[in-house]
Amino acid sequence: MIITLKRKSTKQEEMRVIEKIKKLGYVPHISKGVDITIIGMIGEFAEKYKESFESMEEVDHISEIEKPYKLASREFKKENTVIKLPYGIEIGGNRVPVIAGPCAIESKAVLLEIGKIVKDAGGTILRGGAFKPRSSPYTFQGLGEKGLKYMQYVGEKLEMPTISEVMSVEQVPLLSQYCDILQIGARNVQNYDLLKACGKQRKPVLLKRGMSSTIKEWLLSAEYILSQGNYNVMLCERGIRTFETATRFTLDLNAIPVVKKLTHLPVLSDPSHGIGIREHVATMAKGCLAVGSDAIALEVHPRPEEALSDGPQSLLPEQYKKLMSELKVLAKALGREI
Amino acid sequence: MIITLKRKSTKQEEMRVIEKIKKLGYVPHISKGVDITIIGMIGEFAEKYKESFESMEEVDHISEIEKPYKLASREFKKENTVIKLPYGIEIGGNRVPVIAGPCAIESKAVLLEIGKIVKDAGGTILRGGAFKPRSSPYTFQGLGEKGLKYMQYVGEKLEMPTISEVMSVEQVPLLSQYCDILQIGARNVQNYDLLKACGKQRKPVLLKRGMSSTIKEWLLSAEYILSQGNYNVMLCERGIRTFETATRFTLDLNAIPVVKKLTHLPVLSDPSHGIGIREHVATMAKGCLAVGSDAIALEVHPRPEEALSDGPQSLLPEQYKKLMSELKVLAKALGREI
Amino acid sequence: MIITLKRKSTKQEEMRVIEKIKKLGYVPHISKGVDITIIGMIGEFAEKYKESFESMEEVDHISEIEKPYKLASREFKKENTVIKLPYGIEIGGNRVPVIAGPCAIESKAVLLEIGKIVKDAGGTILRGGAFKPRSSPYTFQGLGEKGLKYMQYVGEKLEMPTISEVMSVEQVPLLSQYCDILQIGARNVQNYDLLKACGKQRKPVLLKRGMSSTIKEWLLSAEYILSQGNYNVMLCERGIRTFETATRFTLDLNAIPVVKKLTHLPVLSDPSHGIGIREHVATMAKGCLAVGSDAIALEVHPRPEEALSDGPQSLLPEQYKKLMSELKVLAKALGREI
Amino acid sequence: MIITLKRKSTKQEEMRVIEKIKKLGYVPHISKGVDITIIGMIGEFAEKYKESFESMEEVDHISEIEKPYKLASREFKKENTVIKLPYGIEIGGNRVPVIAGPCAIESKAVLLEIGKIVKDAGGTILRGGAFKPRSSPYTFQGLGEKGLKYMQYVGEKLEMPTISEVMSVEQVPLLSQYCDILQIGARNVQNYDLLKACGKQRKPVLLKRGMSSTIKEWLLSAEYILSQGNYNVMLCERGIRTFETATRFTLDLNAIPVVKKLTHLPVLSDPSHGIGIREHVATMAKGCLAVGSDAIALEVHPRPEEALSDGPQSLLPEQYKKLMSELKVLAKALGREI
Repeated sequence: MIITLKRKSTKQEEMRVIEKIKKLGYVPHISKGVDITIIGMIGEFAEKYKESFESMEEVDHISEIEKPYKLASREFKKENTVIKLPYGIEIGGNRVPVIAGPCAIESKAVLLEIGKIVKDAGGTILRGGAFKPRSSPYTFQGLGEKGLKYMQYVGEKLEMPTISEVMSVEQVPLLSQYCDILQIGARNVQNYDLLKACGKQRKPVLLKRGMSSTIKEWLLSAEYILSQGNYNVMLCERGIRTFETATRFTLDLNAIPVVKKLTHLPVLSDPSHGIGIREHVATMAKGCLAVGSDAIALEVHPRPEEALSDGPQSLLPEQYKKLMSELKVLAKALGREI
Repeated sequence: MIITLKRKSTKQEEMRVIEKIKKLGYVPHISKGVDITIIGMIGEFAEKYKESFESMEEVDHISEIEKPYKLASREFKKENTVIKLPYGIEIGGNRVPVIAGPCAIESKAVLLEIGKIVKDAGGTILRGGAFKPRSSPYTFQGLGEKGLKYMQYVGEKLEMPTISEVMSVEQVPLLSQYCDILQIGARNVQNYDLLKACGKQRKPVLLKRGMSSTIKEWLLSAEYILSQGNYNVMLCERGIRTFETATRFTLDLNAIPVVKKLTHLPVLSDPSHGIGIREHVATMAKGCLAVGSDAIALEVHPRPEEALSDGPQSLLPEQYKKLMSELKVLAKALGREI
Repeated sequence: MIITLKRKSTKQEEMRVIEKIKKLGYVPHISKGVDITIIGMIGEFAEKYKESFESMEEVDHISEIEKPYKLASREFKKENTVIKLPYGIEIGGNRVPVIAGPCAIESKAVLLEIGKIVKDAGGTILRGGAFKPRSSPYTFQGLGEKGLKYMQYVGEKLEMPTISEVMSVEQVPLLSQYCDILQIGARNVQNYDLLKACGKQRKPVLLKRGMSSTIKEWLLSAEYILSQGNYNVMLCERGIRTFETATRFTLDLNAIPVVKKLTHLPVLSDPSHGIGIREHVATMAKGCLAVGSDAIALEVHPRPEEALSDGPQSLLPEQYKKLMSELKVLAKALGREI
Repeated sequence: MIITLKRKSTKQEEMRVIEKIKKLGYVPHISKGVDITIIGMIGEFAEKYKESFESMEEVDHISEIEKPYKLASREFKKENTVIKLPYGIEIGGNRVPVIAGPCAIESKAVLLEIGKIVKDAGGTILRGGAFKPRSSPYTFQGLGEKGLKYMQYVGEKLEMPTISEVMSVEQVPLLSQYCDILQIGARNVQNYDLLKACGKQRKPVLLKRGMSSTIKEWLLSAEYILSQGNYNVMLCERGIRTFETATRFTLDLNAIPVVKKLTHLPVLSDPSHGIGIREHVATMAKGCLAVGSDAIALEVHPRPEEALSDGPQSLLPEQYKKLMSELKVLAKALGREI
């Protein structure tokens, strides 16, 4: 990092900063302008001491130079991470799997009905929530373990890997038992105890971006999981919060190429939650594919007005089928496959 | 809520919506313009069905009319909630307590040193973190239960109620045992399992605003706690995330009068985390008081460059003392007391 | 619009609102819940009176139902507007023109050099700034009229329509004389005198989205131009300001399908300004095409480190050529043409 | 500025950057870590060349060290600028003038009526718009020159300096003739031609913050005016655009102490536009005073439901009078005067 001292700092003030750098085992690099002195402190994990230097009265501000995460970075691992799932499905390779299903699991019958629609049109991973993070305590909170059992049943029957959201540390063993991928939702992206717990089990983890996570913070949250020994982490953009209210969130497709440059982990996107408007989900899904997403997550429901959650953004079966056939053509034009 | 149908909707489309409203036990109110038909569905918890109507192809959009929270609202309880704490301290009355202490508990000696500074200048509640939510897994994560024991010791010795952050459901019993107020941090404002767990125990809860929480979402999170039977909830504004990077966050003082109008719960503010720059914390604390905060939370540290967390925003003891004497004068001018 | 009265409003208060609605020539529609009374005022331009009702003490809040713009709306004109330019180029049809050139015009020779690169690879419209809006008064402000002359010369020589930015009312005649399209930049999206002046001349106008414009405000700004009689208006998404600083702006691709649904005007996008990082511009350009942009604007410069403005986001000639050939394949897969 | 090279850069790449720095007349300061090389380029206006270095393939990113504005900075002028107005009124001293009046000038009689209310309760500067920036072309656009004449008449009659908004270069002479302060509105904060034109005349200028201006951009806009020779510039915070929609904008009171630290120019605030809700304007005005605003701008209207603009946020005369008496007490407690 680069430490800029307060203007017209004295020799003594400079020395206090220099001594502190040396004490931490780094070599200080001093550059002096007419009014301004800057001191470089470069090396692994130097950024860890940022706050400690910012707290000094002598210091004006700090510019970060190195990345504060390590295991998640391209510098640590150059080639793309490919995550292997049951039934030969992979995420992070040339093929772009489509993850689809209802927002919430409602019953075994409906889940099976939707699972068949998803699979028939070319979707390969089944999604569905058993524990639902709802902003109001008075709305449907999910079927819990019963829902996970339905999920496991339908996944095995249709030979599709499954993914479902985990909302708390206690639910981790349950999710690990029934599902193939554990999803950490946007609202829990900085629930550090949950991140650590998911890092300690061995099922792959999908980490959604928080609605106000910077890219740096998002990668630091991934680092929490990786630092516990679980390297099967994938990231999923799902829309950030901005001033625009015409869409539910602002799906930030800029993040896909930027994050793929910074990390070796697969980067996915979820256009359903991002834009939140059924008639525009298919258009955004094409955008997700075009900017390089490694998988695309969609919500599908045959009767969205009866869905217990997120009906307004769920694709109808015909919309989903049409989209799948369009995505296949598009993937080919982009040198990829669905 | 008000349901606006798609333009030039047919009689049949209107009937589908009307029938659905009746089936849910509400009375539909129909208003027709030249091109547009709107249907009102007014009554308790009508907003609960918002998504279900939004999912219908016939519907263009929904405008919310009633509040989606109840127990937290002024309509439910008109007079201000006053929360009683040990040693005769109250939050929500005319007196504005100052909550102060280090960001993280570092040792018993340092906590006692800071506690004395806080109390001597007029602060009445002791803060300090034992479990710290840190964006990087490689930085200090807090002393855990040992820290809570120091907290209890210093609180009892100085006769000050204590507050500390709870980060997960498993920590709830621990925090309830050692502290007088449980703090739910900004990153956990939508950690619904944690909200429920804090609602089930009986110590007062301070709920920080999430960095991207709308006021409505924040009150819905409070509703989660209240709905479990714990009515001793206080809200604390601590800065929202905006495009401005000159400050750590944007402390949203507008929220204080707006939220106090909507809810009977006490509304506090935390200028230290909000602006994140030591030299401006005192100025913002005065702003917090002027707009009607029911308590003010501050960070104080005698040697911020040695603090294990948040040093850059911690007030030095002399700054804190000067601020306290200024706040006392200001409070009087505002018809309140510190 | 829907007027929600304050809770438990009296008969008299209701009458004051109802009388005001009648006086303005609208029919009030009253719906009463237990505690809440709402009154509909539906009809053309009812939203014009929003502030006037909001100002009444009796009124709690207003929900807008109808769009505040008219000429720009799909309701006013159902079929897409196709804008005809010299040399048979059109914007708004099935073909997606690429608009490319340097950020700022630097010399006749460099502009011609870039123009040839742009045209050879399939770009059909030449862009380049003669008047530059720069955040610092100490940086290059553009060549002015001399630059426009170079633009006209190169456009005619290469048979390409030209576009350049107009920054003030006085520059309008100059731009109308030398260029085929007048661009209104993001910083002037609510410079209403400029909008009106561009509406009074007859060259097509490209209106960029402001960095904090909501979609509604953007369409209202277009309405200003249309209301003066110039119907050849196209809109261009160029990135909004959010909390994310890893990219220059957040190119909001969600806006493309949403705005195309609301308006008949062509909707373009500018990935160069949006993401602001050269190596990611090509990826984002593909995203722009996939979500339905009617034209794509790019910056190209053979020696970006010598460019007088926006070098960091300018494509190198080889990057531009590669992108153009990829876009052609992608366009075909999407049923369009470049 | 600090130039960070791409990781593992070669000797040759370093030399290219070093040579470029030398050619521009600066001294390069090189610091090398294991993988990363950074090069300092420190000195006046080094930041001007930021884009030029960012454009180089060798460069990873740039960290700014020095401020890109000069005349506006505290380094250029240490003591506060005090702006002298007619009738002995000053802005920037210990006294905090209140600027009040209607949003739009509607008639001579109403303006005089409001002016008297303003003055009687202690307001010293009269505001009112003759040219109104309205988001819709179908709403009241202001009385124009006629309005300015009323303004001049009432200002002289009541012996109050006057302020009104200028929206375009052509209006500058008109405004300079009739008013004592020219206001540049939030929507024109980056209308550089207008900034320059206001810099060339000699009446004081009030520059509002744009709704998405960073503090740095805002000060650069002020620099445009100062660079033309007009040093009587004051800044006015009026609310930024964030995700929160419960308030019209988010009045950013954090900006007041931060900007006052960076610049010698007076910093004002406008709580009426910021929060946009009448019943909360007075509370926010107290907050504005407490954080150190050098003047406070308010909207007052005796019959807001008849106001032609911004009625919902205008204070009623009694509210205004009550607020003024409270502000006087508060100012004293803060060591200032109204």
